[in-house]
Amino acid sequence: MDPGLRIYLESTLKEVSIDCVIFGFHAGELKVLLLKWKGIDGWSLPGGRIYLEESVNEAAVRILQERTGLKEIFLQQFYTFGSNDRYKNMDVEALVKKLEWAFGSDFYDEKYIKRNVSLGYMALVEFEQVVATPDWYTDECMWCEISAVPKLLFDHNEMIEVALKALRRQLSYQPIGYNLLPEKFTMPELQRLYETILGKQLDRRNFQKLMLSYDILEKLPEKRTGGAFKAPFLYRFDKEKYDRAMQEEILFAV
Amino acid sequence: MDPGLRIYLESTLKEVSIDCVIFGFHAGELKVLLLKWKGIDGWSLPGGRIYLEESVNEAAVRILQERTGLKEIFLQQFYTFGSNDRYKNMDVEALVKKLEWAFGSDFYDEKYIKRNVSLGYMALVEFEQVVATPDWYTDECMWCEISAVPKLLFDHNEMIEVALKALRRQLSYQPIGYNLLPEKFTMPELQRLYETILGKQLDRRNFQKLMLSYDILEKLPEKRTGGAFKAPFLYRFDKEKYDRAMQEEILFAV
Repeated sequence: MDPGLRIYLESTLKEVSIDCVIFGFHAGELKVLLLKWKGIDGWSLPGGRIYLEESVNEAAVRILQERTGLKEIFLQQFYTFGSNDRYKNMDVEALVKKLEWAFGSDFYDEKYIKRNVSLGYMALVEFEQVVATPDWYTDECMWCEISAVPKLLFDHNEMIEVALKALRRQLSYQPIGYNLLPEKFTMPELQRLYETILGKQLDRRNFQKLMLSYDILEKLPEKRTGGAFKAPFLYRFDKEKYDRAMQEEILFAV
Repeated sequence: MDPGLRIYLESTLKEVSIDCVIFGFHAGELKVLLLKWKGIDGWSLPGGRIYLEESVNEAAVRILQERTGLKEIFLQQFYTFGSNDRYKNMDVEALVKKLEWAFGSDFYDEKYIKRNVSLGYMALVEFEQVVATPDWYTDECMWCEISAVPKLLFDHNEMIEVALKALRRQLSYQPIGYNLLPEKFTMPELQRLYETILGKQLDRRNFQKLMLSYDILEKLPEKRTGGAFKAPFLYRFDKEKYDRAMQEEILFAV
């Protein structure tokens, strides 16, 4: 085994690790970051192990940064995957053989990995800002359309489904859009972001009414010009109010 | 060490365990279940370890059942606590000494516990239906008012805060009340449940409008009589629609 990889395996937790669902948004498209493993024909989510002297949240931030080059991204735990048959859909024996061929004969040593519980973290980033970088185990990255994700290794298809559900839930209690939209944007552009995440169309008037009720938008004395239709107003986020809404959450506003 | 406890420690995961925040509701009161440790003057949340051949969700259900006697309770993961200084607010050395005095000299052996990541699960139950039962480590249980929780062991005060926030979030995307209210209830009784969880008063008319918009309630041709005021209508949950809303979630209904 590569000595660097051995040190990494020996200085990290054995039973717990991290997987990241990194959603990328750009101009109305939603994608997810995948990595291709060395030595096997299989894709997975970016993930990593937790150093003994590191909190799980610190580990997740480090892994996200290592894989995307992005710092200060809103990253959150969404679910911990701890089934005792997480690999039930795979021929584990054949996989282990291939991995040992690629990484060394003690890669799947009991002292490194026995039964693994994985903490799922997710982030939503502007994918044009990302410099995707493979890790120890992988040699290729790709942004894949949500609707075209192939069969992944381990339980990673399930992880994407659960993360997408969590992202959709989040729209009910936290604002979204900062860092994903240009500084000044129109209401239809904001609506398109929500519709892309929800995977469904929303009513224009109800959407506008709800967004304005959150009191996080500043209406600008300018309009987007140049289109074929009536020029729509431009908005920007009031960052202070936006951050407060992230913190306090827009809860059950009856 | 007690041989049973030794077997339990040896046949369970070492780095990961479970803690449960069990909220109890009854007649407008919200409480949380606490356990008192043997040999030390400290309270904690009910928790437990995960058998090697058990999924984390199965372990959580087993622990909840062992501690409360309740089966088929809606129990959910809300957060995984994995800071590397989870015990920073405690004199760990003094605690370990007391625990070893109570449980045996190898209780804190490295091979059983080194650095621990805890999966937080929460449930909301009708506390009058619960038969609270201590575990290996504890000899006393109590239902404690949310506002009167004492300083707990480990990071368990933080866990209750995070669970309460998750429970409040849940009101934005899932129905609540089944198993907590009598079969037939009035709109003010349902509102009281929401207000108790949210810790704030809600507008009566907006609340009723929102609840009816979920389409999970059946209005009955009866009224609650006997009160000093105008008799309020009785409702019950349409269980089929309620279950569907639990599953599909009431998401961003614009």
